[in-house]
Amino acid sequence: MKPTAILLLHCPDEQGIISEVTKFITDNHGNIVYLDQYVDREDGMFFMRLEWELEKFTIPREKIEDIISTLYAKRYSMEFNLYFNDDKPRMAIFVSKMSHCLYDLLARYKAGEWNVEIPCIVSNHEDLRYVAEQFDIPYYIWSIKKDHSNKAEVEAAEMELLKKERVTFIVLARYMQIISDEIINKYPNHIINIHHSFLPAFVGAKPYHQAWERGVKIIGATSHYVTAELDAGPIIDQDVTRISHKDTPESLVLKGKDLEKIVLSRAVTKHIERKILTYHNKTIIFS
Amino acid sequence: MKPTAILLLHCPDEQGIISEVTKFITDNHGNIVYLDQYVDREDGMFFMRLEWELEKFTIPREKIEDIISTLYAKRYSMEFNLYFNDDKPRMAIFVSKMSHCLYDLLARYKAGEWNVEIPCIVSNHEDLRYVAEQFDIPYYIWSIKKDHSNKAEVEAAEMELLKKERVTFIVLARYMQIISDEIINKYPNHIINIHHSFLPAFVGAKPYHQAWERGVKIIGATSHYVTAELDAGPIIDQDVTRISHKDTPESLVLKGKDLEKIVLSRAVTKHIERKILTYHNKTIIFS
Amino acid sequence: MKPTAILLLHCPDEQGIISEVTKFITDNHGNIVYLDQYVDREDGMFFMRLEWELEKFTIPREKIEDIISTLYAKRYSMEFNLYFNDDKPRMAIFVSKMSHCLYDLLARYKAGEWNVEIPCIVSNHEDLRYVAEQFDIPYYIWSIKKDHSNKAEVEAAEMELLKKERVTFIVLARYMQIISDEIINKYPNHIINIHHSFLPAFVGAKPYHQAWERGVKIIGATSHYVTAELDAGPIIDQDVTRISHKDTPESLVLKGKDLEKIVLSRAVTKHIERKILTYHNKTIIFS
Amino acid sequence: MKPTAILLLHCPDEQGIISEVTKFITDNHGNIVYLDQYVDREDGMFFMRLEWELEKFTIPREKIEDIISTLYAKRYSMEFNLYFNDDKPRMAIFVSKMSHCLYDLLARYKAGEWNVEIPCIVSNHEDLRYVAEQFDIPYYIWSIKKDHSNKAEVEAAEMELLKKERVTFIVLARYMQIISDEIINKYPNHIINIHHSFLPAFVGAKPYHQAWERGVKIIGATSHYVTAELDAGPIIDQDVTRISHKDTPESLVLKGKDLEKIVLSRAVTKHIERKILTYHNKTIIFS
Repeated sequence: MKPTAILLLHCPDEQGIISEVTKFITDNHGNIVYLDQYVDREDGMFFMRLEWELEKFTIPREKIEDIISTLYAKRYSMEFNLYFNDDKPRMAIFVSKMSHCLYDLLARYKAGEWNVEIPCIVSNHEDLRYVAEQFDIPYYIWSIKKDHSNKAEVEAAEMELLKKERVTFIVLARYMQIISDEIINKYPNHIINIHHSFLPAFVGAKPYHQAWERGVKIIGATSHYVTAELDAGPIIDQDVTRISHKDTPESLVLKGKDLEKIVLSRAVTKHIERKILTYHNKTIIFS
Repeated sequence: MKPTAILLLHCPDEQGIISEVTKFITDNHGNIVYLDQYVDREDGMFFMRLEWELEKFTIPREKIEDIISTLYAKRYSMEFNLYFNDDKPRMAIFVSKMSHCLYDLLARYKAGEWNVEIPCIVSNHEDLRYVAEQFDIPYYIWSIKKDHSNKAEVEAAEMELLKKERVTFIVLARYMQIISDEIINKYPNHIINIHHSFLPAFVGAKPYHQAWERGVKIIGATSHYVTAELDAGPIIDQDVTRISHKDTPESLVLKGKDLEKIVLSRAVTKHIERKILTYHNKTIIFS
Repeated sequence: MKPTAILLLHCPDEQGIISEVTKFITDNHGNIVYLDQYVDREDGMFFMRLEWELEKFTIPREKIEDIISTLYAKRYSMEFNLYFNDDKPRMAIFVSKMSHCLYDLLARYKAGEWNVEIPCIVSNHEDLRYVAEQFDIPYYIWSIKKDHSNKAEVEAAEMELLKKERVTFIVLARYMQIISDEIINKYPNHIINIHHSFLPAFVGAKPYHQAWERGVKIIGATSHYVTAELDAGPIIDQDVTRISHKDTPESLVLKGKDLEKIVLSRAVTKHIERKILTYHNKTIIFS
Repeated sequence: MKPTAILLLHCPDEQGIISEVTKFITDNHGNIVYLDQYVDREDGMFFMRLEWELEKFTIPREKIEDIISTLYAKRYSMEFNLYFNDDKPRMAIFVSKMSHCLYDLLARYKAGEWNVEIPCIVSNHEDLRYVAEQFDIPYYIWSIKKDHSNKAEVEAAEMELLKKERVTFIVLARYMQIISDEIINKYPNHIINIHHSFLPAFVGAKPYHQAWERGVKIIGATSHYVTAELDAGPIIDQDVTRISHKDTPESLVLKGKDLEKIVLSRAVTKHIERKILTYHNKTIIFS
């Protein structure tokens, strides 16, 4: 894997942005290996993902951000993020009692499918400690009491762990507790949740039972970034499966588990690859 | 096409119903060509669809209903409907301005795909008269005024038409006006609507715009029987298609049209084949 | 609809092509309304679709092709096609006996969904003349005899019609006769066929029967450009539907018809929008 | 879980079979909890799956098979299999180097999703020993040499293991070696393979590369029972995912892995639940 820089940007659409920026990379001997762009003509916004090899790039990597900022950010009212592919994202997984998403994430991790580190698993239950142990990953348990008397304390401990482990994003792998606003604000568009319905249908608790009650013929799962409002953050991916009158709430849960783990892992893949831009509570997903 | 009788029934589940009923058919020389059954173990209900050839059946067709009623209905607390395949359903189509569903229905009708008669098309607009004329089907226009001053009159006229044409079921092919309770009550589970979203997401007006606003990654369409509550009747079929951030409300409308016509026509097919049972605001769809 | 120019190009990938070409458009006051590009890193090929408004574009439309050719084609070893959105494609439809694809195409045409003209329908059978008449489109019949004795004559007549009607592309809407090489060579990547299977499975005749014999659980349909080799041209679109052991060859045909018409019409849409590039017997489909 | 008996049968279709058999169960105080049947009208064959609780069933379980055989098998030319739900199937997993299917199977096993025992994992490589160790399952390695000089020996060792562990069915979880005819004959319709294409397209090696070469727009995976002919056994399940010109052979492999594990596990689920009947190289899958 050759070292590359990845630039994700958006700004009001203007003629010449692509040519300016690609010319800048090229002129400085960066070999562009990925370019995808999208214009939202409704809002007049331009979005781009650019990736280039650093090997012969004449600008030292620690100066790239500053130069892009100086040359383009103000001029184009541009917001951007710069990443390096050898700077691995560090992912914390939060779980409760169901193992299917956790196993799916860890199996990919162990197989080397992802350019990521997983320094810790956090839970509010003992149940999945054995999975963490199978994969030799530290497992931490904190549970907020029903009267919320230990809420501040738990959140402080969680924040400390995330800081200590230099966690860059969080995956809620069927974690059944509300994430505190403090963590959400610390990780804007960096907490990925899997909701076990085809959002916005069946927000909240027991969506498969809701689906069964309503008599739908298709069920779904939705991965999204977590925002302050429950199940209302930017949607990253969704998928569905056909069901019939023969299904019970229990069989829906089983069928849904397969959707959940795939839809969650697809979102995690895109996040790790830095291929997601968020804008106006929506996602632009580069392919 | 040999003449057959079709029996759709449901009752509390008891041992022996299948054997009793099939033995009755067989003993009277009916050749069973279709048998499918389903037990809802949660509610303890039994559902069956049975179809047999009448050629050598020793009970005259006009006496079958009475005999089934006498022999089984009370004993098993059974509700049932009896149909004959040579007794063609008569379908009225209600439309407004969009032609895609109407064309799809009429193309199938004209190609002889369905065992159905279409005696009339009803609309609140002139727009699709040319389609009706292409297919030589009478086209009626009634529109309820915004102040509802002619509501009673319109509904009376519609009811009279439906009666005169011996309409057995109604298809709302993107008909953008509310159906009166009187018609709904006259045709319980016999009015099929197509809603242009994946219900229960995006009930009501402009669902594609709602979907676009929410940033979903999949859109859908839902065919359902019409009940008094808007978009809340028993779902017959649903289907979905994948979209991306590149889609606009306009492209969603175009993609959705393909879903709508297919999902509506699949529901109409099942209805014409008498393969739908409704129970507790859900459908059992025999295959 | 404002007049636009559409440029489809491909060439060996080099740094700076996007910036060169977009700068050229911009400098000459063309307002770019669409830009999508793709790099095949395996083959080192660059593909782009560019569309810009002509209103304030300072280069007269009749000179654009020549200028692009002069400025870029040689320098970048570029192949390109230039279209104008007000230059409507002219589509001939070839049919045999089944009406579902034909109705679907004509319903879209009549509804104004496509920027296209349909000057003629060609068939080897009388069967669908009534459909052509419903839509007031001339219907021509030519049939090649089994001994091929009239082959040259038929093809000459067809070629003459296509020329007279200035047909720019041909849609085979379940046309069950082999297209002559002469026509194929005259319309390279401009004849769209719908094959009623998930290619490359079940090439040739009676694919639904083949699928049923093999016991597959999913059937499909494939739209592709016609090349000299049967069912082997560049694939434009495919779709599938789930089936079960309960399906018969006849029910597969019915389910397949819905796939065929949608998959064919999606291909036609992309072709009319000039969003398809072909390269090495594959298609690049811009979104 | 109450103990039940499961009867899978097929025979030429005759009136009265359902009533005879269900009456027999009922008369002997068996509480039927599942009944599904299917008639292949083409071949005139009847298929049924019946499950009933044994608690109050008056016939001792060890005599049921004999009685069914005596009462019905000859009379109806019936073939049948009788299972008891507390008689857990014993599954051997064969793997090579890729872990995704193995992890998916073991994660379900460990989560208690399946009524199954997994006494052993067999491989021709060392690579996945660590997975077996994570889940504490014995791991055996045998590899047939390229000159096949140790073929007989390896097969004898495998057969001995399967016998010793009382293995009732085998799952090939991306096992890249041909299974010997001896094992196939010993486990007819009891060896489940996952093929990484939408069969019958792309039989044999490197199907994702074949798919990429052909330029398909959808890829698939197929689970099937293994027969003597390569990739030609009865298909149990298939699924597909949409791809585009942007995909490379490598990205197809990644997307395909998600299909493979889900399609394989769905087949294993159905097999464990004894819901698959095979007939004429096809499967009847009860829901």
